[in-house]
Amino acid sequence: MLETISSPAQLKTMSLAQKQALAGEIRKTITDTVLLNGGHLASNLGAVELTIALHSVLSAPKDKIFFDVGHQCYAHKLLTGRYARFDTLRKMGGVSGFTRPRESEYDHAASGHASDAISLALGMARARDLSGEDYAVAAVVGDGALTGGMCYEALNDAGQSKARMLIVLNDNEMSISRNVGSLSKHLTHMRQSSLYRSFKQYLRKLINRMPRGSRFTEKLLTRIKDSLKTLFVSDLFFDSLDIEYLGPIDGHDIREMERVMKSALTYDKPVVVHVVTKKGKGYAPAEEIPDRFHSVSPRDASLEESGETAAAKLGEWLLEKAKADNDIVCISAAMLSGTGLDAFCKENPERCFDVGIAEEHAAAMAAGLALGGKKPYLALYSTFLQRAYDQMNTDIALNRAPVRLLVDRSGLNGPDGETHQGVFDTGLLRGLPGMTVCAPASIWELKQMLELSLKNDRPMAIKYPKKLPAGEITVFSIGEWEEKRAGTDVCLIAYGRMVSIALETANALQENGVSAGVANARFLKPIDETMLSRILNSYPLIYTLEDTVLAGSLGEEIATRSEGKTKVVVKCVPDRFIPSGTISQQLDFCGLDRDTIVKEILLDNGKGKSDAES
Amino acid sequence: MLETISSPAQLKTMSLAQKQALAGEIRKTITDTVLLNGGHLASNLGAVELTIALHSVLSAPKDKIFFDVGHQCYAHKLLTGRYARFDTLRKMGGVSGFTRPRESEYDHAASGHASDAISLALGMARARDLSGEDYAVAAVVGDGALTGGMCYEALNDAGQSKARMLIVLNDNEMSISRNVGSLSKHLTHMRQSSLYRSFKQYLRKLINRMPRGSRFTEKLLTRIKDSLKTLFVSDLFFDSLDIEYLGPIDGHDIREMERVMKSALTYDKPVVVHVVTKKGKGYAPAEEIPDRFHSVSPRDASLEESGETAAAKLGEWLLEKAKADNDIVCISAAMLSGTGLDAFCKENPERCFDVGIAEEHAAAMAAGLALGGKKPYLALYSTFLQRAYDQMNTDIALNRAPVRLLVDRSGLNGPDGETHQGVFDTGLLRGLPGMTVCAPASIWELKQMLELSLKNDRPMAIKYPKKLPAGEITVFSIGEWEEKRAGTDVCLIAYGRMVSIALETANALQENGVSAGVANARFLKPIDETMLSRILNSYPLIYTLEDTVLAGSLGEEIATRSEGKTKVVVKCVPDRFIPSGTISQQLDFCGLDRDTIVKEILLDNGKGKSDAES
Repeated sequence: MLETISSPAQLKTMSLAQKQALAGEIRKTITDTVLLNGGHLASNLGAVELTIALHSVLSAPKDKIFFDVGHQCYAHKLLTGRYARFDTLRKMGGVSGFTRPRESEYDHAASGHASDAISLALGMARARDLSGEDYAVAAVVGDGALTGGMCYEALNDAGQSKARMLIVLNDNEMSISRNVGSLSKHLTHMRQSSLYRSFKQYLRKLINRMPRGSRFTEKLLTRIKDSLKTLFVSDLFFDSLDIEYLGPIDGHDIREMERVMKSALTYDKPVVVHVVTKKGKGYAPAEEIPDRFHSVSPRDASLEESGETAAAKLGEWLLEKAKADNDIVCISAAMLSGTGLDAFCKENPERCFDVGIAEEHAAAMAAGLALGGKKPYLALYSTFLQRAYDQMNTDIALNRAPVRLLVDRSGLNGPDGETHQGVFDTGLLRGLPGMTVCAPASIWELKQMLELSLKNDRPMAIKYPKKLPAGEITVFSIGEWEEKRAGTDVCLIAYGRMVSIALETANALQENGVSAGVANARFLKPIDETMLSRILNSYPLIYTLEDTVLAGSLGEEIATRSEGKTKVVVKCVPDRFIPSGTISQQLDFCGLDRDTIVKEILLDNGKGKSDAES
Repeated sequence: MLETISSPAQLKTMSLAQKQALAGEIRKTITDTVLLNGGHLASNLGAVELTIALHSVLSAPKDKIFFDVGHQCYAHKLLTGRYARFDTLRKMGGVSGFTRPRESEYDHAASGHASDAISLALGMARARDLSGEDYAVAAVVGDGALTGGMCYEALNDAGQSKARMLIVLNDNEMSISRNVGSLSKHLTHMRQSSLYRSFKQYLRKLINRMPRGSRFTEKLLTRIKDSLKTLFVSDLFFDSLDIEYLGPIDGHDIREMERVMKSALTYDKPVVVHVVTKKGKGYAPAEEIPDRFHSVSPRDASLEESGETAAAKLGEWLLEKAKADNDIVCISAAMLSGTGLDAFCKENPERCFDVGIAEEHAAAMAAGLALGGKKPYLALYSTFLQRAYDQMNTDIALNRAPVRLLVDRSGLNGPDGETHQGVFDTGLLRGLPGMTVCAPASIWELKQMLELSLKNDRPMAIKYPKKLPAGEITVFSIGEWEEKRAGTDVCLIAYGRMVSIALETANALQENGVSAGVANARFLKPIDETMLSRILNSYPLIYTLEDTVLAGSLGEEIATRSEGKTKVVVKCVPDRFIPSGTISQQLDFCGLDRDTIVKEILLDNGKGKSDAES
């Protein structure tokens, strides 16, 4: 049936049984594809019926749906004409793992970073009202994303705006409320019934009619109203923000969801529909351990970069260090497992703080821990660290709070694509006064950086990709670069994963008669002044290689410091968002692969043409 | 009396009458100093009694107090040994307008950016508990700051942490609750009374004793408890986050505050004490129009930079444009008046969205408005734009949402000092793929940039300092630089306020026999490739001048593009936080003043020594 669906409008004429059968097909397609290509499994499986209900009630693309984070948008993709290409999920040129406006008219914004959908939807709803247009706007938000302060800012604004919009709270962890069951269902009915609505209106009128000045009576009546409401439904949070709340309802009961969503659309204000779903629904292993199936690695190992997973080693070492040093504490923002901290936290629950999807708070709270004498390790993915830029600046750097930032998934980041690249952190971190910034080229360098961070009483960031070559045991101090290879014609300066590529490039150049040196610029700040000065004075040509954007790159600083002494060519990622693909494909895409660099240097070195001709 | 206070410990032995008299003295000192030096007046006047009560109950510096934003820390400064130097407020080398650890052992973190105090305090409280230490931790937070999502993230974390901490909610706008008065006072008493506490405990025990499985009864009892609580106090918001709430109480009643704060300190969990204060209290003009006295300009005009206020002109022009173009909408985050949008908003309330201190939401909501077909102008101070870095990246740049960022107070920013410098925006903005970034050197250039932004359907940022010279009417297109002056020996490339300094420098160089060209690099992205290439090819020496940090500066890109063709010297602010002072003092401090640059260029040009000797 799924292959016959070219538009969600077809749902409108389907029977409930047909929709249920469709849900099964969607689930199978998602499971099969994700187990093969990798991607977000458990959350997408949980949102199948929810998506069917939503598309049944709304008329997309006229009505606009914003999927928060996009961990729950696969069913939406399958229902909006992307079934045929779904096997290309997360591959270069294929279907993105997140919503993407350039991919479909049914996607209205890129998603990938949590908690922004309500803001986007509210902006869209306001644009609609100002233009006198008439369409529905919906945001689908997970309960996890609701821990992000941005959601609260948006709800706070939405509550007073009276903008007509539907917020579907996809609660798959039941962290918001545990009142699931028959009583709640009953209460929801009650709440939506004309009886309860008219009772509320009656009270409001009564209050409005009361003589001014009789504050005591007024307050008393309001309180009576509020407490009756509390007796009906438990929605203190949304109530306090003046958002209408309906729920909780069963997120796998299509008929019930359609009924409540339809009702929600009749309100002239923002309405939250609280839907309770089961993560991993329909795929037994994921239902059992949903966390393990939140993000799944591709079955095809060639899609993954080779090397050892940095997070795993780091987690192991931190756990070991923590035995001897009681001051070590760890903080993460819903990334404990991804950043390798789960074992540490299991062993030291009192020294581990997972604050939910709340990077801003995580960074400032880490600063508080540091100011209180602890050694906090704040582990975040590079792309999500962006959320905490201001806190790194004001709370960490300005206070000289010795927070240790573990910046995982730094640089190009593979199949998650545009919204998950860690290519902005270099400039963000290097611009912070007094910050130490380093990037290991191997697992053993990472170990040494961890050692250094333990003794360093200043803010320090260690940034690394998901995987790194093992390398060898090595000892160095802060700011010390390494000459990996000497040469005479050109010097390649690189750090992180680019060091291996620099070495390969140097080998290839040698075969072409060009003598290339390679320096491992392990420290991006402070830099190794002595070695850099020697390189600037002894090489006629320098190439810097970084998988980061140009602005704020190390290469720019090296070019600046050269002050015309020698030619510096700065190779970075181009000025555009880098789409999904393997790391290797993305390096090619950016011109950061060995062959492209070799070719450019040969041309630059005056040998390109003649060699090519010979 | 105030001059005899060297430590807040002295408050412990004072009578209520003495404290009230002291409050009067503090108020007078604050009013006199701020009217002279400039600073935050209304909010500081409101928090005098609150601060006396807090320091009476706590034992600082053993007990730690975090003042959010720092708009309410002057009384704290006067009570902690900074009275004698208070006349240096906001001056270079003087007392900072915000808390500053390097200034006093009573200040535990730098403040200046709203909503971070609860996070810092929670981190400190956790550090205390882990170390087995025993001190109190308090955060003083304004109701305005509570609109920031970070506060919510912190409360959400604090609620489940059970960390012992006191949160004083300084409610001076009564935006949180209007339940001020005798009933509330009565209810607060009731809430704190052993009767109510024991009633709650009784219910909890009852619930715990109930047979498992009897969910219905359990829920019913919980609901009865909750509804009774609601009858007592209106604290839905804090209740939903599981934070204990006491209040609201009169924030000018020292005795009452001491009583409630003492009680709050007996809880083994986070407690909010909701204190209602009057902004501007005790200074009639500020009580009447607190908004006008939120931030006061110094009486001494020499402390202000000369020029016209950019915000005022921009507000005027936007208002004018909005008459012809219905799609123009404005968004701000509690900075409407400071960014010049108040007249626009008064005239077009339906097209103006002030979302409170919530920059993240402001930026994403603006993206939503743009995606819905509007032309949103998002006006923020540069330093607060840092909060929305991720949203500029993901919601604006990646979606190619044509949001117009009006980045006010860009570059060095005068007496507010370290936490308010706009010196980070250049790299942040230039790193965003596809972003147009420009910086006017005059009011009339700003006008032309506004014209360009109206027709531009891509994300665009215009960044400018508070004041600019008027300049002349001028027309140019996106990416076009201007040759202000031709020369042969050296070319000075600058933008924004640095263009005037470049011209002065060129004049001074001419007097020293050096022929200097000056280019106005109005566009930081895209840059004027043709003009830059001509400059790189025709000058033996280039100086770039920017009041921004090095990483991501335009100068670095110019040095990079020179690829060794000529010598490029990049002048930026040094790698440290720049303290309070006048703009002119700060330029000196950074070596960005005319005399320093002239001296360096003369040395560079081989003329320095001989000229100095002649």
